[in-house]
Amino acid sequence: MFELDRASSTPLYQQLRDQIRQRILSGGLPAGTRLPPERSLANTLGVNRTTVVNAYRDLASEGLVEGRVGHGTVVMAPPTPPPEGPVRPMHWAGVNEPEDPVVADVNAVMRRAGSISFAHGEMAPDLFPAAALGRLFARAFSTGRAPLGYGPVAGYLPLREAIARRMGVNPGEVLVLGGSQLALYLISRVLLQPGDTVVVEVPSYINTLGIFESAGVRVVPVGVDRHGLQVEGLGEVFLRYRPKLLLTVPTFHNPLGVTMSLERRRQLLHLAARHQVGIVEDDPYGELQFAGERIPSLKALDPGGYVIHISSFSKSVTPGLRLAWLSASPAVVERIAAARGILDFRAALLSQWVMDAFIREGDFDQHLQRLRPMLLRRRDTLAAALKQHMPAGVTWHVPDGGYNLWCALPRPLRARRLLSEAAREGVAFIPGDYYGPGDEARRGIRLNFSYPKESEIGDGVKRLGAAVRRILKEEGRPDESRLELSGPVV
Amino acid sequence: MFELDRASSTPLYQQLRDQIRQRILSGGLPAGTRLPPERSLANTLGVNRTTVVNAYRDLASEGLVEGRVGHGTVVMAPPTPPPEGPVRPMHWAGVNEPEDPVVADVNAVMRRAGSISFAHGEMAPDLFPAAALGRLFARAFSTGRAPLGYGPVAGYLPLREAIARRMGVNPGEVLVLGGSQLALYLISRVLLQPGDTVVVEVPSYINTLGIFESAGVRVVPVGVDRHGLQVEGLGEVFLRYRPKLLLTVPTFHNPLGVTMSLERRRQLLHLAARHQVGIVEDDPYGELQFAGERIPSLKALDPGGYVIHISSFSKSVTPGLRLAWLSASPAVVERIAAARGILDFRAALLSQWVMDAFIREGDFDQHLQRLRPMLLRRRDTLAAALKQHMPAGVTWHVPDGGYNLWCALPRPLRARRLLSEAAREGVAFIPGDYYGPGDEARRGIRLNFSYPKESEIGDGVKRLGAAVRRILKEEGRPDESRLELSGPVV
Repeated sequence: MFELDRASSTPLYQQLRDQIRQRILSGGLPAGTRLPPERSLANTLGVNRTTVVNAYRDLASEGLVEGRVGHGTVVMAPPTPPPEGPVRPMHWAGVNEPEDPVVADVNAVMRRAGSISFAHGEMAPDLFPAAALGRLFARAFSTGRAPLGYGPVAGYLPLREAIARRMGVNPGEVLVLGGSQLALYLISRVLLQPGDTVVVEVPSYINTLGIFESAGVRVVPVGVDRHGLQVEGLGEVFLRYRPKLLLTVPTFHNPLGVTMSLERRRQLLHLAARHQVGIVEDDPYGELQFAGERIPSLKALDPGGYVIHISSFSKSVTPGLRLAWLSASPAVVERIAAARGILDFRAALLSQWVMDAFIREGDFDQHLQRLRPMLLRRRDTLAAALKQHMPAGVTWHVPDGGYNLWCALPRPLRARRLLSEAAREGVAFIPGDYYGPGDEARRGIRLNFSYPKESEIGDGVKRLGAAVRRILKEEGRPDESRLELSGPVV
Repeated sequence: MFELDRASSTPLYQQLRDQIRQRILSGGLPAGTRLPPERSLANTLGVNRTTVVNAYRDLASEGLVEGRVGHGTVVMAPPTPPPEGPVRPMHWAGVNEPEDPVVADVNAVMRRAGSISFAHGEMAPDLFPAAALGRLFARAFSTGRAPLGYGPVAGYLPLREAIARRMGVNPGEVLVLGGSQLALYLISRVLLQPGDTVVVEVPSYINTLGIFESAGVRVVPVGVDRHGLQVEGLGEVFLRYRPKLLLTVPTFHNPLGVTMSLERRRQLLHLAARHQVGIVEDDPYGELQFAGERIPSLKALDPGGYVIHISSFSKSVTPGLRLAWLSASPAVVERIAAARGILDFRAALLSQWVMDAFIREGDFDQHLQRLRPMLLRRRDTLAAALKQHMPAGVTWHVPDGGYNLWCALPRPLRARRLLSEAAREGVAFIPGDYYGPGDEARRGIRLNFSYPKESEIGDGVKRLGAAVRRILKEEGRPDESRLELSGPVV
């Protein structure tokens, strides 16, 4: 009647369950059929009675059978089928969410001719090292054996080596991925369970919060000020909430542009070790320092394996190749590599081959040496234009690297209101409440100075300044009592 | 004391909660402090009492405060901090899973010189259209404005148009992704909730099951025979389990190589409409038909929007560019595009630009016309070699397209045992139990004939045949009573 395979890795009760299910579904055991009593079936099959009990229990939970007092286990009738009829279109549940209004507003501005964007997440196309990349792609195809296969799951080994050498780690501590978000996503799935807690600095990149929320993880916010993540009180947060991870962008923070001080970095690492909290250091802009003192990454300061460092070539080279990496202890790298196998499978081998050559042959360093002063010039142009065109009460933080300058509007101004007004002027930026809750976020705007042409920056800020003045005229004088980005921005 | 912003989109109770939390964590409200009674705080702030109740409730659930009878709501002391001491290395939980033994075995074979692989998931590198791709990459860089930015979230529009034209759908029904697995993953996250049921054909690609399992979804298996997914009894399965989705690879199934008949396709669509079950048609090999009659895709037969069609350029062109796509109704495409924004963000714009040109300028069709007869020759070489070198009792299904031929070993042979034996001969394949449970799966082996050189195929099969004979000699004669791949393979 049933055929069980004792050599199989599938438990006997599951084999039995699956065979009975198959027979019910194929009509071989019609509704009303009484299954054999557990004990007698167990005897017939030469198995433990528990095997049959477990098989029947699973089938009952699936609604296929029912235990009836005095009648044993009986095959159930299926629900009544829906009537036959003409084909109805499929109703897909949960697929009608509206577009994010900020994205919609920004896109509306950008579609207009003559518009100027401080809203982009990338640098200007003319800053990409297209000539060098083009030369290397050509070479990849000239070898007669272009790197077009899948490649290894943890990444193309020469590229892992090249990255490891720059970071001062071993290649086994580097995993190549198709983007930083994927790294965060994999971390949230591999190292966290639903119900776990993570500490995230706020404001922060909006998709980060989405990733943790979708993992069913509790997010505890901590503030950021002009010296970076606020470490004071963090021990108390670690103690109360017992988080598994803390996520920070310590260097040229997005959106604030601030950098965490060396002292705070040491304090953070000390607290992490004391409370056994992992630190995820998201560091997309680290190579783009054009002013100020260089501060070591958290990863470089970490002797205990607490830091998972994530970085990307999207901001420093181009987002068009989809290449990022993660650096952590080998056990973490292996585990995340295994998880990425079911998700995005691999990063593009061709892109990895090109990026490896780009690094090894010095193109990357040359590109950075050319890029940094260009970003510095754009930053200076922006800061000078703000000084010239913004009314009193508007303040900003001048960053030492990266793409972003954060500008605080005086009360009662709101960034969203300014975005609508600026749209009329053909200027776009990202309003601060995109990055988190709170009054300071609502009055903040992120200006990406790496995207607009140097010649456009002044004009863009002039138009922005006009929009600010127009609103102030309509809504009243600024409240000059709180002008500084100094307190917590939670 | 507390400052609530009525214009904010953050609910008042959350604002109050966050401000009290901040004050507790910063030491402003030390342990033992009594918070104001709910009613009096509500009066002071001019809010509903429920606002305060809800704020206190959240804080209590976080362990920050406690309601004490007769004492109101009191700030709790934190847990005792761990002792200070030297830095302990981080203990990362859950990161020590062993390598999949099949992958380990196959990799061990492939590291040996002179080994022959039927185990790969890709075609031979010399079948990639490297010359045409190289020419198009060069052109992308010669334009003076290489496509190196992020590009739109749903994909580069010209490529969406080019794919849509081939499929006979609208560009709004196409979403470009970095791989088929990502498409399945996004579908599992956007269209399914934990606890939902999906029907999946078994055997099937192993990562598919991993994706659904990790989404907390119940998987109900249905069998596949030489006419494809077994539709008989499927109405009963739909009725009993009320699945949201069914997943099938109807054309040149992986690993079986079989194709679902037109009649079954129509029956499946009829059942899907009757029971409102969405169908995910995974179709990586559809363009690689080299023999037999062409059967329309499920998508082409579906008037009601039931089918989400997934395909990829990984099998038909190269996996090295990481490009796949999904085609479904515009609402589904938009929703999945929004979800991918937080995951992999974008597919590589440069690759999309190249693939668009590859399709539009006829390179894709020329490549397919060259590729199909080459795959046919490799398949024929494999089938002839099996006939010549395999002992009686070994059977196989000769596919009309794709990469894979499924070969059934006679009892008592096991594919895993054969893999160990074949490893000594320097030949690798994927054992059938990699794709699902059951006796037939354990006796099956998947042979990818698109990867080994035509000249290697005969030698590889000869070595495999020798390994089979050696095991049979040790373990006894084959059981010739069950030689056909005809019944269910669940």
